Amino acid sequence: MAVIGFIGLGNMGGPMAINLVNAGHSVKVFDLSSEAIKHVVTKGGLAASSAVEAAQESDVVISMLPSGKHVEGLYVSSSQPLFDVVKKDALIIDSSTIDAATAKRVCEIAEQRGLSFVDAPVSGGVAGAVAGTLAIMVGATDAQFAEAKPILLNMGQNIFHAGASGAGQIAKCCNNMLLSVLMAGTAEALNMGVKNGLDPAVLSQIMLQSSGNNWALQKYNPYPNVMEGVPSSNGYQGGFQVDLMYKDLGLAMDISHQSGSPAPMGSQAKSLYSMHKSKGNGALDFSSIMQLYQD
Amino acid sequence: MAVIGFIGLGNMGGPMAINLVNAGHSVKVFDLSSEAIKHVVTKGGLAASSAVEAAQESDVVISMLPSGKHVEGLYVSSSQPLFDVVKKDALIIDSSTIDAATAKRVCEIAEQRGLSFVDAPVSGGVAGAVAGTLAIMVGATDAQFAEAKPILLNMGQNIFHAGASGAGQIAKCCNNMLLSVLMAGTAEALNMGVKNGLDPAVLSQIMLQSSGNNWALQKYNPYPNVMEGVPSSNGYQGGFQVDLMYKDLGLAMDISHQSGSPAPMGSQAKSLYSMHKSKGNGALDFSSIMQLYQD
Amino acid sequence: MAVIGFIGLGNMGGPMAINLVNAGHSVKVFDLSSEAIKHVVTKGGLAASSAVEAAQESDVVISMLPSGKHVEGLYVSSSQPLFDVVKKDALIIDSSTIDAATAKRVCEIAEQRGLSFVDAPVSGGVAGAVAGTLAIMVGATDAQFAEAKPILLNMGQNIFHAGASGAGQIAKCCNNMLLSVLMAGTAEALNMGVKNGLDPAVLSQIMLQSSGNNWALQKYNPYPNVMEGVPSSNGYQGGFQVDLMYKDLGLAMDISHQSGSPAPMGSQAKSLYSMHKSKGNGALDFSSIMQLYQD
Amino acid sequence: MAVIGFIGLGNMGGPMAINLVNAGHSVKVFDLSSEAIKHVVTKGGLAASSAVEAAQESDVVISMLPSGKHVEGLYVSSSQPLFDVVKKDALIIDSSTIDAATAKRVCEIAEQRGLSFVDAPVSGGVAGAVAGTLAIMVGATDAQFAEAKPILLNMGQNIFHAGASGAGQIAKCCNNMLLSVLMAGTAEALNMGVKNGLDPAVLSQIMLQSSGNNWALQKYNPYPNVMEGVPSSNGYQGGFQVDLMYKDLGLAMDISHQSGSPAPMGSQAKSLYSMHKSKGNGALDFSSIMQLYQD
Repeated sequence: MAVIGFIGLGNMGGPMAINLVNAGHSVKVFDLSSEAIKHVVTKGGLAASSAVEAAQESDVVISMLPSGKHVEGLYVSSSQPLFDVVKKDALIIDSSTIDAATAKRVCEIAEQRGLSFVDAPVSGGVAGAVAGTLAIMVGATDAQFAEAKPILLNMGQNIFHAGASGAGQIAKCCNNMLLSVLMAGTAEALNMGVKNGLDPAVLSQIMLQSSGNNWALQKYNPYPNVMEGVPSSNGYQGGFQVDLMYKDLGLAMDISHQSGSPAPMGSQAKSLYSMHKSKGNGALDFSSIMQLYQD
Repeated sequence: MAVIGFIGLGNMGGPMAINLVNAGHSVKVFDLSSEAIKHVVTKGGLAASSAVEAAQESDVVISMLPSGKHVEGLYVSSSQPLFDVVKKDALIIDSSTIDAATAKRVCEIAEQRGLSFVDAPVSGGVAGAVAGTLAIMVGATDAQFAEAKPILLNMGQNIFHAGASGAGQIAKCCNNMLLSVLMAGTAEALNMGVKNGLDPAVLSQIMLQSSGNNWALQKYNPYPNVMEGVPSSNGYQGGFQVDLMYKDLGLAMDISHQSGSPAPMGSQAKSLYSMHKSKGNGALDFSSIMQLYQD
Repeated sequence: MAVIGFIGLGNMGGPMAINLVNAGHSVKVFDLSSEAIKHVVTKGGLAASSAVEAAQESDVVISMLPSGKHVEGLYVSSSQPLFDVVKKDALIIDSSTIDAATAKRVCEIAEQRGLSFVDAPVSGGVAGAVAGTLAIMVGATDAQFAEAKPILLNMGQNIFHAGASGAGQIAKCCNNMLLSVLMAGTAEALNMGVKNGLDPAVLSQIMLQSSGNNWALQKYNPYPNVMEGVPSSNGYQGGFQVDLMYKDLGLAMDISHQSGSPAPMGSQAKSLYSMHKSKGNGALDFSSIMQLYQD
Repeated sequence: MAVIGFIGLGNMGGPMAINLVNAGHSVKVFDLSSEAIKHVVTKGGLAASSAVEAAQESDVVISMLPSGKHVEGLYVSSSQPLFDVVKKDALIIDSSTIDAATAKRVCEIAEQRGLSFVDAPVSGGVAGAVAGTLAIMVGATDAQFAEAKPILLNMGQNIFHAGASGAGQIAKCCNNMLLSVLMAGTAEALNMGVKNGLDPAVLSQIMLQSSGNNWALQKYNPYPNVMEGVPSSNGYQGGFQVDLMYKDLGLAMDISHQSGSPAPMGSQAKSLYSMHKSKGNGALDFSSIMQLYQD
């Protein structure tokens, strides 16, 4: 079992850290919110008084932060950057969803200093974080991936080696851009069917078994009360917020722009989420895009 | 076993008629192309000299025509409309993909004349028609659906009762609009990943097992040589032509317009297919939308 | 001065007929609403008891109807089609905004019967109809255009010879599709500027004098209270309704589809108007698309 | 007459500096390209050996650089930042088109150090730079604007006070986003008209005098040979490159994202320019978007 420093205990990071505790690791946790630290400590985590304390002398350092700026600050440019204090042979795993350019830059700095840094953003929402069933997309060398995988399996189910440094972020971006397209497209098709007299559950079944089959129909039907236990049957509470999808689509648009990759479908989904958010729906689950279509 | 009149023996209708022959039915076939008739006759079909001859005294009449105008002409407004000659208790199944308004209108006229007409458009392409694995979406009463289902099972695998008259066309339109969105969205995500250094097969696997999972990744990957036996690995030959997707999207846009159902994602996919078609790619498989994205 | 039969006295047709009266013509008017007839009669028009009575023995017949179906019915396929009753040398002017295919078909039928029919849809809204300042786009031969122009100048200011039969409808469609793009694009730019702290009047002035200059900024600013006397400064009342722009965009999408002309920008504007309409704003002026953008 | 330091002598900066020389100012010029310096010197400029030399002891410092990173480097974060060397009462004018956030940040730093910095991006292309007819949008206090305007009038014709610091960049972004929408919308309408038999010159005239009127029809018709002296009549050479429009649309998308301002029309135009660029057309004039539509 490893000594792990875990920094960032939000909606995702908290349950991820607890799953590491449950797997038997010694997990030193830090967050700006002392409440968040306390919660993990009640599950067996060890409180650290700073990110530095969490990271020092840990075999593995894991971070789960809101943006590239925070990640760069934590490791490189704050007054006490973690790259100055971690063990030389520590494995550093950043599971934040951030821009690939920052991920690559931080990785390069790590390499220059003889440190090992991988990007490993996750997918699967709060429910997946709690259940330990996240999908995790890793940008790393083969050796780094082999070392990281057993640790990541404590938090997720499908651990993918997407490619070299930054590839985890790219893969997640591509996947989430596609997800936004699937969700909006599915909501649109269901709304059109219903407005023309079809039963949403019947139409969902038909498309699920036809060429319209996709994750939204399988796991996350956006039409209220077609599927149990999903946000659409619970007033679009919980789940993956519109604000977070909006953030991820912003990252996708940056990648699209910088690499000159046309993204008309992703741009369209982003426009829809932007309109939906601007009407005050940022805190709803992202399947609430259904409401943008309804009369 | 039934006596069936089958009108329209194109790429789809031909194999569908042959599957009825193979199931043991007596199938009288007609098409404007004598070649098409001959081909089915070599498989055991019976040549009819006209649509009227095919339909007269048949227990079941099935049509597979290019557009609503043709269907309305065949049954109602030609010089010898089939509604004048079919047996009173015949079951009339139109498997053409046409506008729902025409489907409903023809059904109403049938009802007024004491005839039984259902819309039953199919999905699954030429391969599905040959293999007898089509998905078939039926707009019919419960009694009509019960009567039609055994016949349809000779041609398809998943037979759906979408709702009342016209609902089959609506369901197919919704499904195909969604399909166009899935295909374009998947091509776009794959292109962006590849332009940023990812391997298309790896990225496909990741998205397939994540929330980007959809029919295009499962069955019909648009990136060349990621999947065997699909059009993208065969120069985009065969399959479901861009021209046909363009036609189906035209029907979807009409339904969207007439019912006031917003369709920003479907419209976007249609714009992309329109641009792709205008550059001379109408005869390629619809997964060739991949090429619109590539440098 | 001519004897004119005028059929269709709605928001546009009424004032157009009155302008013909004011120009000194003898104008026989018909509408399904007797109120509408009475109103024109108080201005000097002559009541006709039917479309046939209005058209018979008139030198010029003008129609202003809601759709191609109505136009085809009026002239060709109703129980008393006007083509059966008009004078052989009458000039028939259809100013309805309808699909170009119907306009051409009706014109062909007219030609076959030795009659003269031109399409002459108008632009400029109710205000333009009242003021006699409409733009009128004419599909006609040179001779027909020469004959129609003096009559049309009684109702409009800019009379354009767009081309042969149907070209008037095509030109109007192209113009109105572009107009929807200008209006949505202008609203979007203004909203973004204002959300970033700019004064809408200042930004309007800057763009008006720069390369963003367009009709919406010149004549019809969508931002409330930037311009006097426009619908945006009057709660988006009056003007050109969202429902009518939606109808016109439906015609444009049909032309786009049938001719294989990609229309990504027009489709996008249509999607926005569709969403705006589905939220209950069909009766507002079309510049109210501003509200779709605002928080 | 003032002593002016001018840094950045590219396609735009070069002729702008020459216009200042022509107005009688003493202009010290610097660029990384010695060729660019030489060219301005032949017109009467004074060569500086570094940006610092150009800026030191100048009454006015003007910069014309490719991106926010360059501007921040020049003034703040390079090894010899100009804010360390300029006269305390110098007026610093950045005419680069950069992101508004950087413009505001650099302005704030200037204020903290008692310096005067304004953003003043220009519009009007190389032709406007040469002719001295640029539109210039200024983000500044009233006092700063009053001081900058006489200088700016040597380079441009319409000098706008857009608002406080950063407002010049915001206004330019809004204008150019709208311009991209006008250009794509105009190309689309013309293509659709032509595909339906209309003459592009006739349709251009009609829309120019109707509600489709916009800058592209007035000054920059994208259809070849409708207008003389524009890039579309010269193989889309010269003018404002697709690559530059793509860059500006990237800035617009960032502003849209950061401020939560939906931009469906601008996004759509960006998608079209992205596809056009990805097919190798980045160096053509931006009106070449016409070609994306054509068969």
